[in-house]
Amino acid sequence: MEVEQLDTPVAIVDLDLLEENIMRLQSHLDQCGIKNRPHIKTHKIPEIAHMQIKAGAVGITCQKLGEAEVMAQAGISDIFIPYNIIGRSKLERLVNLSRRAKISVTADSDVTVQGLSQAMALSETELPVMVEFDSGLNRCGVQSSQEAAGLAQLIHQLPGLHFAGLMTYPSSDKTAPFVRETQKLLQPHGLQVEQVSGGGSKAAWQVQYFPEVTEHRAGTYVYGDRSGIKQGYATLTQCALKVIATVVSRPTATRGILDTGSKVLSSDTMGLEGYGLIVEYPDAVIYGLSEEHGHVDFSAHQRAPAVGERVTIIPNHVCVVSNLFNEIVGVRNSRVEVVWPVAARGMVR
Amino acid sequence: MEVEQLDTPVAIVDLDLLEENIMRLQSHLDQCGIKNRPHIKTHKIPEIAHMQIKAGAVGITCQKLGEAEVMAQAGISDIFIPYNIIGRSKLERLVNLSRRAKISVTADSDVTVQGLSQAMALSETELPVMVEFDSGLNRCGVQSSQEAAGLAQLIHQLPGLHFAGLMTYPSSDKTAPFVRETQKLLQPHGLQVEQVSGGGSKAAWQVQYFPEVTEHRAGTYVYGDRSGIKQGYATLTQCALKVIATVVSRPTATRGILDTGSKVLSSDTMGLEGYGLIVEYPDAVIYGLSEEHGHVDFSAHQRAPAVGERVTIIPNHVCVVSNLFNEIVGVRNSRVEVVWPVAARGMVR
Repeated sequence: MEVEQLDTPVAIVDLDLLEENIMRLQSHLDQCGIKNRPHIKTHKIPEIAHMQIKAGAVGITCQKLGEAEVMAQAGISDIFIPYNIIGRSKLERLVNLSRRAKISVTADSDVTVQGLSQAMALSETELPVMVEFDSGLNRCGVQSSQEAAGLAQLIHQLPGLHFAGLMTYPSSDKTAPFVRETQKLLQPHGLQVEQVSGGGSKAAWQVQYFPEVTEHRAGTYVYGDRSGIKQGYATLTQCALKVIATVVSRPTATRGILDTGSKVLSSDTMGLEGYGLIVEYPDAVIYGLSEEHGHVDFSAHQRAPAVGERVTIIPNHVCVVSNLFNEIVGVRNSRVEVVWPVAARGMVR
Repeated sequence: MEVEQLDTPVAIVDLDLLEENIMRLQSHLDQCGIKNRPHIKTHKIPEIAHMQIKAGAVGITCQKLGEAEVMAQAGISDIFIPYNIIGRSKLERLVNLSRRAKISVTADSDVTVQGLSQAMALSETELPVMVEFDSGLNRCGVQSSQEAAGLAQLIHQLPGLHFAGLMTYPSSDKTAPFVRETQKLLQPHGLQVEQVSGGGSKAAWQVQYFPEVTEHRAGTYVYGDRSGIKQGYATLTQCALKVIATVVSRPTATRGILDTGSKVLSSDTMGLEGYGLIVEYPDAVIYGLSEEHGHVDFSAHQRAPAVGERVTIIPNHVCVVSNLFNEIVGVRNSRVEVVWPVAARGMVR
């Protein structure tokens, strides 16, 4: 089947570009001597995770336990979950999962660490736990090296756990000083920071400036998106995932309505103007989204597309877009090669 | 099972409130003599659609053909799709669906009308087609009564179609004059505006001011949300759908991180501050969302919740939130009564 025969809205992934994106980052990290542990949040598709591992990744990263379960069931054997796993239900699932795959996690509080230890206490293996620290995003993570060192010691002391190092998102100027300071504090206690996990698709190309980082988590690089173009780590021609839309209404000379609304493109702006880039009409602005309608101003173009015409959209933020589709169509040379269920989509727990 | 035993994040619907919301609007529209045709975009759950019909709705509204297919398969027999159905694939599905249920649609262009007619030409029945007009939202819809009348005549003349009236979203001050003017233009041609379909959950409570409207489409009223509270058509205690979240991190004295990010709450602000209302901490602000983290400022409260504490969130825009969950948990008196798959979620085509 040809791409032009696919009904819209549809999310297609150019397989040549996908493979190139996977190889390009892998080669770069290989050259820098940094282990690659891509974040599957962007694609949520087991076959793509296997492609990343085949290319040289040491394992994958999942943000939710439910995503990790899907990936483990698909044969992925080394999964890092950089999230505070809290509560009886999730801890039980974590213990079960850690019997079937090599699982590691993060923690940024005593509460999380105590829960992990209690859950793992009866297990034969130790769960590797990294301490998450805040390197400027102001999200999760301990705020000081003193806190990090304290938590590392707690992990080391409690049964069932192994202190595996430090983790942050994204890698930044604050990463190296934080790691060095924490190492210094841990040395007298005979504890080492074995691994430092950094993250971010932009930071992936700057790993040489973060020598303390031993492995890297990047997600969006695999597809690329409009935000990635703006941030400078992807080019328009490298963007592998595109949404094909149909113009369903042309109420005025300059207004066009697409069959892609917020339930396809999401409302994420990522600080950009409009809700996506229309490849064929790059100066048009998707200025508004209803749930099932994209509102476009075509006034910057001499000719606006007619009702029924198809357009190609590079989304602002591809991770949330692939989470809105039940399946992604893999294409090569404009022919459909595979239809992938987005197997780990909606795994909110 | 008790609600407190459910793992988070989870979307729960209070069944008493749901039933009350359904009955309240139905009674109001009954009193006003307006037919009720609720929009299932908000819940996407067949059993709730059946509850709405049992309460007195004449049928339902779906925004996408794929949603209508799911609902028809669940036994809903009267479905309005107020959308321009365009392209061979969808037209074929539309013809098939119209053999199994009473389907009606809208159009706002010659292209759409011609396509519908060609598809329906060989069918034994006529497809009811309403002309969509723009009553101020600046989305789809013809811009003038002259256009509306011209399109109505085209629908009337072409085989396989029946001109069924006018449709707009939302009902507004412009609705009545537009309808009257179009009726005037159609009279000499012997054509009548049989039905006028208005829409909107806020406008549903103002139908008495739109006497030309014969039936009404409301969606969000069924659950209610923070935007509905702001718009004045729902109260906090009427909101039936809530998201339960867990505090997974407390990096600072005032910052808390929830396990609900944009993949649960969506980035829709609806013009509100923050990404949802935390019932237990009404002055806290969910000031940012990552994909799997909600960033909360608890500084307005003397006490911020501890790691592991659960909080209840009223989302800004409930329609996009229910589209992000694979299932919704129906509860009564804090006990789980039913788990509904969101059967029509992700039906983007």
